[in-house]
Amino acid sequence: FRLRSSSSSSSVASEEGGGKNDKDEEENGERTTIGVIGSGAVGCYYGARLWECGEYDVKFHMRGEHYEASKENGLLLTSVDRDVHIPPTLLQTYSDPSEIGPVDWVLLCLKSTGLNAAPDLVRPLLKPTTRVLAVMNGLVDEDLVRLIEGQGEEDEPQLTKCAATYGGMALLCSNRVGPGVVDHSYAGKLTVAVASSSSSSSSTGSSSFPSNEDRDAVIDLFAPTSVEFVYEPSIIRGRWSKNCWNLPFNGISVAMGGITVDKIVTDPGLRRLAYGVMDETIAIGNEALRRSGADSEADPQLFLGEVERKAMMDLSDGMGPYKTSTMLDLTNRRPMEVKYLFRKAVDTAKKLGVEAPHLETVVAQIEAHQRFHNLY
Amino acid sequence: FRLRSSSSSSSVASEEGGGKNDKDEEENGERTTIGVIGSGAVGCYYGARLWECGEYDVKFHMRGEHYEASKENGLLLTSVDRDVHIPPTLLQTYSDPSEIGPVDWVLLCLKSTGLNAAPDLVRPLLKPTTRVLAVMNGLVDEDLVRLIEGQGEEDEPQLTKCAATYGGMALLCSNRVGPGVVDHSYAGKLTVAVASSSSSSSSTGSSSFPSNEDRDAVIDLFAPTSVEFVYEPSIIRGRWSKNCWNLPFNGISVAMGGITVDKIVTDPGLRRLAYGVMDETIAIGNEALRRSGADSEADPQLFLGEVERKAMMDLSDGMGPYKTSTMLDLTNRRPMEVKYLFRKAVDTAKKLGVEAPHLETVVAQIEAHQRFHNLY
Repeated sequence: FRLRSSSSSSSVASEEGGGKNDKDEEENGERTTIGVIGSGAVGCYYGARLWECGEYDVKFHMRGEHYEASKENGLLLTSVDRDVHIPPTLLQTYSDPSEIGPVDWVLLCLKSTGLNAAPDLVRPLLKPTTRVLAVMNGLVDEDLVRLIEGQGEEDEPQLTKCAATYGGMALLCSNRVGPGVVDHSYAGKLTVAVASSSSSSSSTGSSSFPSNEDRDAVIDLFAPTSVEFVYEPSIIRGRWSKNCWNLPFNGISVAMGGITVDKIVTDPGLRRLAYGVMDETIAIGNEALRRSGADSEADPQLFLGEVERKAMMDLSDGMGPYKTSTMLDLTNRRPMEVKYLFRKAVDTAKKLGVEAPHLETVVAQIEAHQRFHNLY
Repeated sequence: FRLRSSSSSSSVASEEGGGKNDKDEEENGERTTIGVIGSGAVGCYYGARLWECGEYDVKFHMRGEHYEASKENGLLLTSVDRDVHIPPTLLQTYSDPSEIGPVDWVLLCLKSTGLNAAPDLVRPLLKPTTRVLAVMNGLVDEDLVRLIEGQGEEDEPQLTKCAATYGGMALLCSNRVGPGVVDHSYAGKLTVAVASSSSSSSSTGSSSFPSNEDRDAVIDLFAPTSVEFVYEPSIIRGRWSKNCWNLPFNGISVAMGGITVDKIVTDPGLRRLAYGVMDETIAIGNEALRRSGADSEADPQLFLGEVERKAMMDLSDGMGPYKTSTMLDLTNRRPMEVKYLFRKAVDTAKKLGVEAPHLETVVAQIEAHQRFHNLY
């Protein structure tokens, strides 16, 4: 069963509709279970799209007023594509992840500022066959794999090994607009790459390709949904491709003290600067790909270039006055995702010997804003 | 006669004091006359220091509430070095420059945003022996000489030729804090170079050295004052040396949305960025010097380098929470000196083939702030 995309209709629970048996698990032992950790603008969007297709048993971890409001009124996704309302009678929401228990898939949508909290949140959801998809910004994968798989230092929590971890790159304009309400204003494409796997030698630092099993599992997960899904064989390529948007647009929006995307693309100087940062990002990403063993002569299509450059600017041109996530953090005086989103990119450039002075300038300014307002 | 520097005393009119004969011109036909055009934070500072020494007949052009308040209460300079109060009975202030009439020296302290207004303001003060000292920020000299000397297009006002024009670079922390009141918080060094001369072949684009007469005239002007004065033989070197402060500090203060100098020097990332912009500025300035004929092997001391680098950062370290002039323009939503202070520097870098990506980034941001708030 799959709901058809029809832009003006709203998805609600019906006899056939999404989540019809969510409260009736005994009869559905075979249904794939999904636990959404970090149910913010990103987690609620993809969680709602997974719920909406009717094939999954989706459980949301929520906190605070978001949890309270969702218990009372359900979860509402208003969307340019199709609204989704999960009514309170069908919404499975938990404030304590241990009440969720082991699931087949963890959709981890924390901000990278909360990465260290991930082990405690994820541990109760893991069994050896669990797959973890981290739809997060920035170069989080190495640290995430270390945290999730317990390959870290001795005093770090050692987690149950899971079957695989994935990095998800969301080209998605959505914001949480109130308790229990997320608004989706533009785009939504999800690109996913394998970050680590127990069934292959692939890892974040390797160019070896992940197993077909890992690839197929995530493709199958999103196949019944309306999400525009792209499987990306290289996590390095995937992360740097997403950085082609994040570094210029999240970056300049914050460096300028908090401006929306339309201001960047319509101001001629900032538009040029966005291209400058993007071109440096492409250069860093391509050097990272080369160092991982990719061969630009044998496989030119593996490398970032004009296609990504144009796609990212076209995407931004359509966004209107979108507030980037880091801009919202700055203006709402919340912790900003500086370390994984910006600092690691600059450090990677240095380590790889790639010049990135525009990026470096923007990141120095972002870090200064972070320090001035203590947004850690 | 010269007042001694004594940091705690205040200069006031006394029988011997500054300006004793300012209202008694008939008896002092030989006194050098000085007209201060643009009596803001810079004009009032140097004008007061020239008045204070007692040797000059100083006339201030003022406007609006500044003029009204000064007529009523005189002009007050509060200073870390020594306060100066020119009482209303001794202050010569004029709202119409034609009432000033021809003078020996014009001290032109307009903001560069007001450069096009200069001909109308300066014309009434000119005679063929008048010397014009423009203590202004940015690469204004070529345009100023064109405007003052009437070498421009046919529809531009043609002025009486004057004896010489000079560019003045003020390393001065002073702000107008209210009508008729200027506060001087730090530094004050004035570097002056000849920009054009009727008695020599020197001009802004030439490396030929100005005449001794032009040099001596301005040295003699400041000799009786307490101003730390440096004669600079090369206008190019002088302007780029000042840019070593203006571009990083005015620049970053505005690019960051309006922060004080202490924030820049104490934040490790912004301090590094300030050095980055400064090093690019040095590279542009040195290339400009080379193109003007200076020889870095024969005359290494002509070129900017570690001495200026250290001097500018040391200066900034001592400034405290100083609000740069361009930051004040931004926060008070007044026209910002973008064209001469920033845009011309970037364009010069491009013209000379010098890479300046940090500067370019900062200037793109400044121009965006200017456009967003329409500060032209």
